[in-house]
Amino acid sequence: MEASEGQKRLPTVSAPTPIEQSRDRGQIDRRTFLTRSAGMAAATATAWAAPAAAADAPAGVPPSMRTPGRPMSGYGQPSGFEKPVARIVAAPYGAVAPGTGAARTPIHALEGTITPSGLHFERHHNGIPEIDPAAHQLLIHGLVGKPLAFTVQALLRYPMTSRTCFIECAGNSSLNTFLKPPQVPAGAIHGMVSCSEWSGVPLAVLLDEAGVDPRGRWLLAEGADGAAMSRSVPLAKALDDAMIALYQNGERLRPEQGYPVRLLLPGWEGNMSVKWLHRIKLTEGPMHTKDETSKYSEPMPDGNARQFTFEMGVKSVITRPSVGMKMQAPGLHEIAGLAWSGAGKIRKVDVSLDGGMSWCEAVLQEPIFSKSLTRFRLPWEWNGARVQLQSRAIDEKGNVQPTRASWLAQYAPEQRYHNNSIQTWAIDADGGVSNVYL
Amino acid sequence: MEASEGQKRLPTVSAPTPIEQSRDRGQIDRRTFLTRSAGMAAATATAWAAPAAAADAPAGVPPSMRTPGRPMSGYGQPSGFEKPVARIVAAPYGAVAPGTGAARTPIHALEGTITPSGLHFERHHNGIPEIDPAAHQLLIHGLVGKPLAFTVQALLRYPMTSRTCFIECAGNSSLNTFLKPPQVPAGAIHGMVSCSEWSGVPLAVLLDEAGVDPRGRWLLAEGADGAAMSRSVPLAKALDDAMIALYQNGERLRPEQGYPVRLLLPGWEGNMSVKWLHRIKLTEGPMHTKDETSKYSEPMPDGNARQFTFEMGVKSVITRPSVGMKMQAPGLHEIAGLAWSGAGKIRKVDVSLDGGMSWCEAVLQEPIFSKSLTRFRLPWEWNGARVQLQSRAIDEKGNVQPTRASWLAQYAPEQRYHNNSIQTWAIDADGGVSNVYL
Repeated sequence: MEASEGQKRLPTVSAPTPIEQSRDRGQIDRRTFLTRSAGMAAATATAWAAPAAAADAPAGVPPSMRTPGRPMSGYGQPSGFEKPVARIVAAPYGAVAPGTGAARTPIHALEGTITPSGLHFERHHNGIPEIDPAAHQLLIHGLVGKPLAFTVQALLRYPMTSRTCFIECAGNSSLNTFLKPPQVPAGAIHGMVSCSEWSGVPLAVLLDEAGVDPRGRWLLAEGADGAAMSRSVPLAKALDDAMIALYQNGERLRPEQGYPVRLLLPGWEGNMSVKWLHRIKLTEGPMHTKDETSKYSEPMPDGNARQFTFEMGVKSVITRPSVGMKMQAPGLHEIAGLAWSGAGKIRKVDVSLDGGMSWCEAVLQEPIFSKSLTRFRLPWEWNGARVQLQSRAIDEKGNVQPTRASWLAQYAPEQRYHNNSIQTWAIDADGGVSNVYL
Repeated sequence: MEASEGQKRLPTVSAPTPIEQSRDRGQIDRRTFLTRSAGMAAATATAWAAPAAAADAPAGVPPSMRTPGRPMSGYGQPSGFEKPVARIVAAPYGAVAPGTGAARTPIHALEGTITPSGLHFERHHNGIPEIDPAAHQLLIHGLVGKPLAFTVQALLRYPMTSRTCFIECAGNSSLNTFLKPPQVPAGAIHGMVSCSEWSGVPLAVLLDEAGVDPRGRWLLAEGADGAAMSRSVPLAKALDDAMIALYQNGERLRPEQGYPVRLLLPGWEGNMSVKWLHRIKLTEGPMHTKDETSKYSEPMPDGNARQFTFEMGVKSVITRPSVGMKMQAPGLHEIAGLAWSGAGKIRKVDVSLDGGMSWCEAVLQEPIFSKSLTRFRLPWEWNGARVQLQSRAIDEKGNVQPTRASWLAQYAPEQRYHNNSIQTWAIDADGGVSNVYL
């Protein structure tokens, strides 16, 4: 797989000093992490990236200043130099069903917490339908006082709300259940998670208008795609923080994200945020659709499958450095990554250089939103030793990201959903970064 | 000008009841605003957009469910149905200098607070240069201990930070200084403001590395474009919250926003956030460049020009309803808009239906960031009366958005920068929305 632009960020390697552990529970603090990981006391005085000294005069006039530039445009695009930063497309059914599969976000090439809409991950069960918003309706029916059909035009007049949150596919990180650790960029493994500012109408407002029959305790949400993607949702979630999403990062939803209408269930399995939403039926119980029985259920050691694991677990991944990048020089580096939890806010992210034997607390970038991507960062003086980098997230409910071994131990061998286990990146003496199982 | 998709949002008109004012300072509260503006007590029980009742059965199978959809892609684009939602391009020098001018954000067609990067406003003084990041350097020189040249690759290794903030051109809203109020969409008047999550390196870190000479109290920032756009910046701002921005909404900067490197000075005149940044020179005082003398200075009544009005004033605009939309039905509507201040957070936004005689407090959508767009909303039961809609923002420093008359009174007649005055939209009996001066 092509290495990304992130590859350029990290310098070469010389031999390092082992990390010192404190005697107290194997933890190291942030200052120790910074200064002792390279065995030097004055690391903070070192230049981060050794810029070249320059003569005290402008470095000539670059060609771009000698000619007029190009004009404005109606809708802008990334620089041509950024072409390699693209979604990583996997269409396992090839020419037979080219729209069935996934396209992952290149999280290793991105910064901050917002995913640009053009790079938001895709996961489709029968491709992206083209839907004319003027012809689309959202039906609310079943156990309601008054069945209602909403045009998109009508929905756009309702009171709106906005929130930033992640969507993660339940199958994200399933590549790390393979027998051998795949040597592909972080986005190819963990890129079925993305984060946007979503705006739309609280579902509770529309349900209130239809009037929910007391027997209606669940709802069925169905998409208008060729897969008729459909999931059962407990009413309590619908009344809590569910949104009929119409806008993504300021503009109307992208086609891959359900244009013109999607359901948004913050923190829950991505496919439950049903795209191209065309009906919601109030029911007494779950409907056990194909999408919650043959898929999105977890085979357990006793031979049964566990159904309805709605919430996405607490999780983190270091995006820089990661596979496909190469350490190009000893010295100061920033370790950066993303953490998230379907249960609420991230409280803490720990980073280890020694495969989980000792830990140091990373800095969480403000603001920290509930059920949203949180950026963590940690300065690191590296002098070239082999290290085994890990991150471990803890959320506000006290949930702790599990090790790979403890996560695997819960399930039957073929289970691959909800893999929120700790990722290990090994940095070798030659500066290469690889995916390893510990 | 073509009306935008926002036009579809608002319903028709019948005759209204006058708004009741409280006796206390002409203010009305939010409940009064909602229930009395239509002269009815039970407005909250009314449906927002009168959805059609539907038979208790799915409304057939739409065509999109009968065929596979299209496959995944590397980089996604908006739906073809959203083509009218585009930047509003103004290139006043036509074929002679097609890259000189502006392209405004269609704020009337957007929701939430993030501006999608493809719709972030543009303002160029000689077009968009194409810059190969591998050939670009940022020079820090002048009154420094050690002049330094940073490659883009080196900058990408530095510790990063992210923040969400607006950028507003000092010339935004200058159309409202015309003799007659222009009847164009809100974005064509006020769309030289946009909001992104920016990530990059704090400028203070790089200045610390170069070592600022005590005589260095200002810096000159110069872009590598054909206009050599350059501005003088007090050192205090550079050390406070200035950023060397490398990423915008998660991905690398867009070419129109300074790829590969721009200066970001949160809350200050947009052109000071110099794009395509290639050098920063520490100086004893301001350099009085062409871009801060012949432009971006304010003609005053005494014949002098006021220089260095860095901070953008407290401001707001109602985006829905606004010019180009048509009220299509009486009933409940949401008034929505944006507020911002270069001085910090928005504390309060008031809305008036009667041209500023009485006010009601709008709801501010959380989270509220400093120097960032803040969305405000207010439910409104409208029964068709002519109204004069206004919004008035107040920031955390107590700055109050001025009326048009009081704003104009400060300056010489030809002054057009820093227009943060209150916008009035009139809604007529036929449901049309127009721009009026009060």
